[in-house]
Amino acid sequence: MAAAERNIDRMARLVAGTEVRLRPHYKAHKCPELMRRQLAAPGTAGAACQTVAEAAELAALGCADVLLTNQLADPRRVAELLALPPEVDLGVLVDRPEQVDLLGAGAAAARRRVRVFVELDVGLRRGGFDAADPDVAVAVGAIEEQPWLELAGVQAYEGHAVLEPDVELRHRRAADAHALAGRFRDRLARLAGRPLVLTGGGTGTADLIAATGALDEIQCGSYVLMDAAYGRLGLPFEAALFCVATALSAHPDGRVVLDAGMKSLSGDGLPRALTPGVRVLGLSDEHTRARQAATVLRTGDRLLLQPWHVDPTMNLHDAVVVVEDGRTHTAPIRGRHAVRAG
Amino acid sequence: MAAAERNIDRMARLVAGTEVRLRPHYKAHKCPELMRRQLAAPGTAGAACQTVAEAAELAALGCADVLLTNQLADPRRVAELLALPPEVDLGVLVDRPEQVDLLGAGAAAARRRVRVFVELDVGLRRGGFDAADPDVAVAVGAIEEQPWLELAGVQAYEGHAVLEPDVELRHRRAADAHALAGRFRDRLARLAGRPLVLTGGGTGTADLIAATGALDEIQCGSYVLMDAAYGRLGLPFEAALFCVATALSAHPDGRVVLDAGMKSLSGDGLPRALTPGVRVLGLSDEHTRARQAATVLRTGDRLLLQPWHVDPTMNLHDAVVVVEDGRTHTAPIRGRHAVRAG
Repeated sequence: MAAAERNIDRMARLVAGTEVRLRPHYKAHKCPELMRRQLAAPGTAGAACQTVAEAAELAALGCADVLLTNQLADPRRVAELLALPPEVDLGVLVDRPEQVDLLGAGAAAARRRVRVFVELDVGLRRGGFDAADPDVAVAVGAIEEQPWLELAGVQAYEGHAVLEPDVELRHRRAADAHALAGRFRDRLARLAGRPLVLTGGGTGTADLIAATGALDEIQCGSYVLMDAAYGRLGLPFEAALFCVATALSAHPDGRVVLDAGMKSLSGDGLPRALTPGVRVLGLSDEHTRARQAATVLRTGDRLLLQPWHVDPTMNLHDAVVVVEDGRTHTAPIRGRHAVRAG
Repeated sequence: MAAAERNIDRMARLVAGTEVRLRPHYKAHKCPELMRRQLAAPGTAGAACQTVAEAAELAALGCADVLLTNQLADPRRVAELLALPPEVDLGVLVDRPEQVDLLGAGAAAARRRVRVFVELDVGLRRGGFDAADPDVAVAVGAIEEQPWLELAGVQAYEGHAVLEPDVELRHRRAADAHALAGRFRDRLARLAGRPLVLTGGGTGTADLIAATGALDEIQCGSYVLMDAAYGRLGLPFEAALFCVATALSAHPDGRVVLDAGMKSLSGDGLPRALTPGVRVLGLSDEHTRARQAATVLRTGDRLLLQPWHVDPTMNLHDAVVVVEDGRTHTAPIRGRHAVRAG
């Protein structure tokens, strides 16, 4: 936890003295104990989450400003979200006019104000309007017509940039995305006749955003625990999440089989072994295959693995073991059993 | 469930009239309701599992013959396994002499007979002795010296062959592995002075093993639910596991964002959309990115996705919804919260 606390402190110092606010993302770890500490950091505007179940966990934490950085396309999910305690100020994304109608109907039925953020695709090619899509104006008009919806801002996540290891390329891609997003936000603000918030960003682009102020908020997630993917970037955050694995067999030909696989660690990349001289070669359902040149590990030895990707690793576990002040305790992971937003 | 039942029946017919026995693998789905039906199929010798927690679930199902197709390198795990009800006949793998000592000590302490299977690496390069490793004889000698251990057979899993889409190459690789394994089994049987079981195989090589009788048992797992990876092989088993996803947004440029990602579907390959005209492009934590040429899906529409890989998909969920005789019920997934063998 000391490493996570240092990461929280480093991120807070990054935006100190700027207008940029932090919006830590609960989806990264789904661990309330950790999020409580992130929310207490100076410069924090509120929290982000990716599912209604995560929003409920944030509400239970007492978070007053929750942005669901996802679309809703099922009236049941809308109703679930709007049934959260009324003191929570809710924000939701839209990138199709139909979603506005659905959200507006739900908000009217619940008689609850909902802040709406229009998502722009800035290069990730996942969610978000194309800037040139004529339905942007249709959606904005639809939001303005819905009495319980309030056009509050623009979501622009430069997910195609955040993990680029080359810092120059990463910053160039992000700056292009931020410029596109800024123009889009200004256009919507003119349509709405009032200022709008521009939110997005991530761990890999936080330094740039803090320096330029191109976005109003940083939706930072991975910085607090870090992972092997972000570890390649040379960011000022340290590894704080590990998986303890046991060498089931260490063979004379250098093969080492570890007892943690894709059911314990995210399967979209290889974990990193913290033991020098041990190189990870592959991941199967219940095993990590590694190789050692000299005998560093013997059968039965334990070692630490750093997951490739923090979010889908945390999602595999019911709890994390927290090491703090020389003691350990168990911190639950909550909100993972309903991972769908639709 | 009808599709799963047909798959169970097809696998049983594959080995009918042969000496080959089935040993369905619980690790594939961890669903007791499904395993109960697999165990009831003709020609079934017992079950396989990959963790002690899975072995406990099999014991709870009343399975009398449980093979843990994994090594144990932690005395606590050995003690947990040997604390299972005494009517369960337990088998465990070894591929290092140290594991024999650990298992022998545990078996002596528990005063319980344990069948030991020596694992041979036949090309997967994960676990298993190299055939030429001089420690093979050391391990066999150590097993024979342990009063509560019984050398029962050889484990040889041709995991490098089972998913090869080219049937000729798949069968050639598997046949080479089976030949190597057969010679190794014969060598160990001579050392032991009695016949030994040769166990291994999988869904992709079951047809070959049934035809040649090269192995005594088939550790088949994926056949019962199937997945997109095995779906490429043209095997006589049908898809029986799907994930219902919602289109969060369907864009005019053909982009479709679905609300199921790596936290709902295994992240080691792309799921397949069952809706014609919809092609899956990518998977992120909570989303599947897809593309459609014409408007097949609209925002809010549902569709079925077939996971790439059944085992690490089932592991993400607490239960499956079973469709049977026009009705649905929920079947728990059990034993997944302790995924480690070490």
